Amino acid sequence: MIKVQKESENIMIDSSAQLGKNIIVKGDVIIGKNVIIEDNVYIDYGCIIRDNVHIKKGSFIGARSILGEYLMDFYKDKTNKVHPLVIGENTLIRTENVIYGDNIIGDNFQTGHKVTIRENNKIGSNVRIGTLSDIQHDCNIGNYVSIHSNCFIGEESKISDYVWIFPHVVLTNDPTPPSDKLFGVIIDSFAAISARSVILPGVHICEDSLVGAGAVVTKDVLKETVVVGNPAKKICSIKDIKDKVSGKPVYPWRYTFKRGMPWEKSDYETWIKKLDIQK
Amino acid sequence: MIKVQKESENIMIDSSAQLGKNIIVKGDVIIGKNVIIEDNVYIDYGCIIRDNVHIKKGSFIGARSILGEYLMDFYKDKTNKVHPLVIGENTLIRTENVIYGDNIIGDNFQTGHKVTIRENNKIGSNVRIGTLSDIQHDCNIGNYVSIHSNCFIGEESKISDYVWIFPHVVLTNDPTPPSDKLFGVIIDSFAAISARSVILPGVHICEDSLVGAGAVVTKDVLKETVVVGNPAKKICSIKDIKDKVSGKPVYPWRYTFKRGMPWEKSDYETWIKKLDIQK
Amino acid sequence: MIKVQKESENIMIDSSAQLGKNIIVKGDVIIGKNVIIEDNVYIDYGCIIRDNVHIKKGSFIGARSILGEYLMDFYKDKTNKVHPLVIGENTLIRTENVIYGDNIIGDNFQTGHKVTIRENNKIGSNVRIGTLSDIQHDCNIGNYVSIHSNCFIGEESKISDYVWIFPHVVLTNDPTPPSDKLFGVIIDSFAAISARSVILPGVHICEDSLVGAGAVVTKDVLKETVVVGNPAKKICSIKDIKDKVSGKPVYPWRYTFKRGMPWEKSDYETWIKKLDIQK
Repeated sequence: MIKVQKESENIMIDSSAQLGKNIIVKGDVIIGKNVIIEDNVYIDYGCIIRDNVHIKKGSFIGARSILGEYLMDFYKDKTNKVHPLVIGENTLIRTENVIYGDNIIGDNFQTGHKVTIRENNKIGSNVRIGTLSDIQHDCNIGNYVSIHSNCFIGEESKISDYVWIFPHVVLTNDPTPPSDKLFGVIIDSFAAISARSVILPGVHICEDSLVGAGAVVTKDVLKETVVVGNPAKKICSIKDIKDKVSGKPVYPWRYTFKRGMPWEKSDYETWIKKLDIQK
Repeated sequence: MIKVQKESENIMIDSSAQLGKNIIVKGDVIIGKNVIIEDNVYIDYGCIIRDNVHIKKGSFIGARSILGEYLMDFYKDKTNKVHPLVIGENTLIRTENVIYGDNIIGDNFQTGHKVTIRENNKIGSNVRIGTLSDIQHDCNIGNYVSIHSNCFIGEESKISDYVWIFPHVVLTNDPTPPSDKLFGVIIDSFAAISARSVILPGVHICEDSLVGAGAVVTKDVLKETVVVGNPAKKICSIKDIKDKVSGKPVYPWRYTFKRGMPWEKSDYETWIKKLDIQK
Repeated sequence: MIKVQKESENIMIDSSAQLGKNIIVKGDVIIGKNVIIEDNVYIDYGCIIRDNVHIKKGSFIGARSILGEYLMDFYKDKTNKVHPLVIGENTLIRTENVIYGDNIIGDNFQTGHKVTIRENNKIGSNVRIGTLSDIQHDCNIGNYVSIHSNCFIGEESKISDYVWIFPHVVLTNDPTPPSDKLFGVIIDSFAAISARSVILPGVHICEDSLVGAGAVVTKDVLKETVVVGNPAKKICSIKDIKDKVSGKPVYPWRYTFKRGMPWEKSDYETWIKKLDIQK
C-alpha cells in the first residue's frame, strides 16, 4: 500500500493514508489520518500533514509546512475534529506555511515562505500568495489572484479574479473596533492595490481601479479610478497613466501585461475573443 | 519521575526537568535544564524548550515553538546563562513562536503563529498576540490586551489593561533615529489603535481614545479623542461615533462589546459595580 | 574527515561536505552536497543546509534555518542546480531564516528570526537584518547597513553603506503595477528611513537625508533633507533637528551616534581622518 520513497526512518505515516504513485517524502514528516496524497507529490523535510488533508497530483510541499492545522475546537479537548483541506494539482507551497483545515484551494496554487491561511476560505485556481501573508478565515479569493508578501487579508474579504495585491497591504473589516461586526472588503476583477495601502471595512474597490502605494482607502473606489493619499482621493482615471518610457497608456493592465495570465501565449483581446466564441 | 506520554523515541528531556501529571510530548521535542512543566501540558511536535522555562498547568505549546530562546549573552561563548521564562496557566501558544528568556507571562495567554517575544517583558493575564507580531524587549503589557497580527511593539512600550492594537500597527521609540535614546509609546486603558497606524516615539495615547486606520500619530492623543490622518489630527470625540445600522453610540467600547472580556457574562456596568462593592 | 561534535544520531551529512575544526552540529540537522563549513561554526537544531553552501569561520546558524534554499529552477524537475551561497565570518543568524542560493554575504552578518533572503543579492559586511524582513532578489546592500524588523526590500534595490531602515519599511519597484518594469529604490550613504514608510519605484534618497515615520515617498529626496507625510514633502534640513533634551543638533547622525559603527571606539571625525591618512 505505502509505496512512498522514504528518505529516513523518522517518518510517521498513519495507516489510513491513501498514497499514490511516485511520491517522495523526506525525513521527519508526519502524516495523519485519512490523508490522501495523489501521484507525483513531493513532501520536503519536516512537514506535518494533519488529518483529512487531500493533496492533489504533482504538488510540492515545502519544508516544515503544516497542512490541516488545528482549528479552535481542537484545543478544548486536544482532539482533532474533521476539517478537510483540499489542495489542488501542481501546487507549489514553499517552506513553513501553515494552512488550516476547512479550506478548498484550486490548482496551480503557489505560495512564498511562512504563509498562514486560516479556515473556511475558498481559493480559486492559479492564485499566488507571497511570503508572510496572513489570510484570515471566511474569505473568498477568485482565480489568478496575486497577493504579494506580508499582506493581511481580513475575515470576509471578497477578492475577484485577476486582482493584484502588493506587499504589506491590509484589508480590514471591523467598522468600529473592537466590535462583533464584520464588513469585509470587496475587490472587483482587475483592480490593483499598491504596496502598503490599507482598505477600510466594507469598502468596495471596483473593476480596473488602481489604489496608490501607502493609501488609506476610506470610501468606495469607482471603476477605472486611481486613488492615492490619506484619506485616499481620486487623482485621475487609469487611462491617464502613461508609461514613462514609451508614453503609451498602461491601464487597463490586462492589455499590456500577460506574465502568468491565461492570455500569456497571445494577448488579452485574442484570448477573450476565443473564449467568447467558445461560449 | 518522567511520566510523560512520549509519542516518539526522538525526544530529549534533560534529567533535571520537573514534569507534572498527564503531560503529552509529541515527537522531536527537546527539553533543556531546570525546566518545570506542570500538569496537563501538551507540547506539540518539534518544540525546543531551552533551559529554565516554567510552563504552568493546562497549557498548549504549538508545533516547533522555541521557548526560553537565547539572549545575546549566549552567542559570545555558546553557553546559556540563567534567563527564566514563566508562562502562565491555560496558555495557548500556536505554532513556531519564539519566546526569549527573562519574561513573565500571565495566565490564559494566547498567541497566533510565528510570534516573537524578546526578553525583559512583563505581560499580564488574558493577553492575546496575533500571528507574526514582534514584541521587542523591556515592554510592559497589562491584562486583557489584544495585539493583532503582525504588530511591532518597540522597546519600552507601556500598554495598559484592555487596550486593542489592530493588524500591522507599529509602536516606535527612537526620537532621532539612529540614536541611543528610547522613548517608548504609552497607551492607556481602553484605547483602540486601528490597523496599520504608526505611533511616534514617546507619544501618550490616553484612555478610551481611538486611532484611525493608517494614522501617523506624532502627538499625544487626549482622552476619548478620535484621531486620523498623516499627521494624525483630532476629528471628533469617540462619543460622536454611531453604529451605522442602529444609529446608537459605540464608544466607550466597553459598554457595547464584551467578547473575551471579564464582563462577558453580564455587562461592563454590572461587572464594575460588583468589583466596586467587593472593594 | 568528519570531526563534527554530533549531539544526536539523527543528523545527515553528505559525504562531500568539507568540515573544519571544532564544529558543533545539534540534532536533526541536514547537510547537503559540496557544503564547506569552516572552523568554530555552530549549527543549531534542525537546520537544513542545502547544496553548495559555504559558511565561514566562527558563525552561528540558528535553529531550523534553511541555507541555500531552492531557486525556482528546482521545482521543475526536483533537482537542485548549482547556486552557491557564501556566508561570511562571525555571522549570527537567528532561528528560522531562509536564505536562498546565489547570494554572497560579508562578515559579521547578523539577523533576527524568520528572515527571508532571496537569490542574487550582494550583501556587504557588518549588515544587520531584523526579524521577519524579506529581501527580494537582485539587491545590492552595502556595509554597515541596518535593516530592522519586517521590512520589504524589493528587487533591484540599491542600498549604500551606513544606511538605516527602520521597522515595516517597504521599498517598491514596479512603476505601473502589475508590469514587467523594475525600477529599484536607490538609497545613498547615511540616509535613515523611519518606521513604516514606503518608498516608490525608482526614488533616489540622497546622502544624509531622513524620511519620517509613515511617509509615502513619491519623489527623490535631496541630500540632508527631512521629508514627512503622504505624499512626503520636505519640512526642513536635517541640521534643523535638535535633541529635545540637550538642544544640540543630532544630524548628520554619524557625528552623534557610534554604536556598532567602525568609529565606535573613537568618533566619526577621528576615524575618518585616520582613514584618509592611511590612503
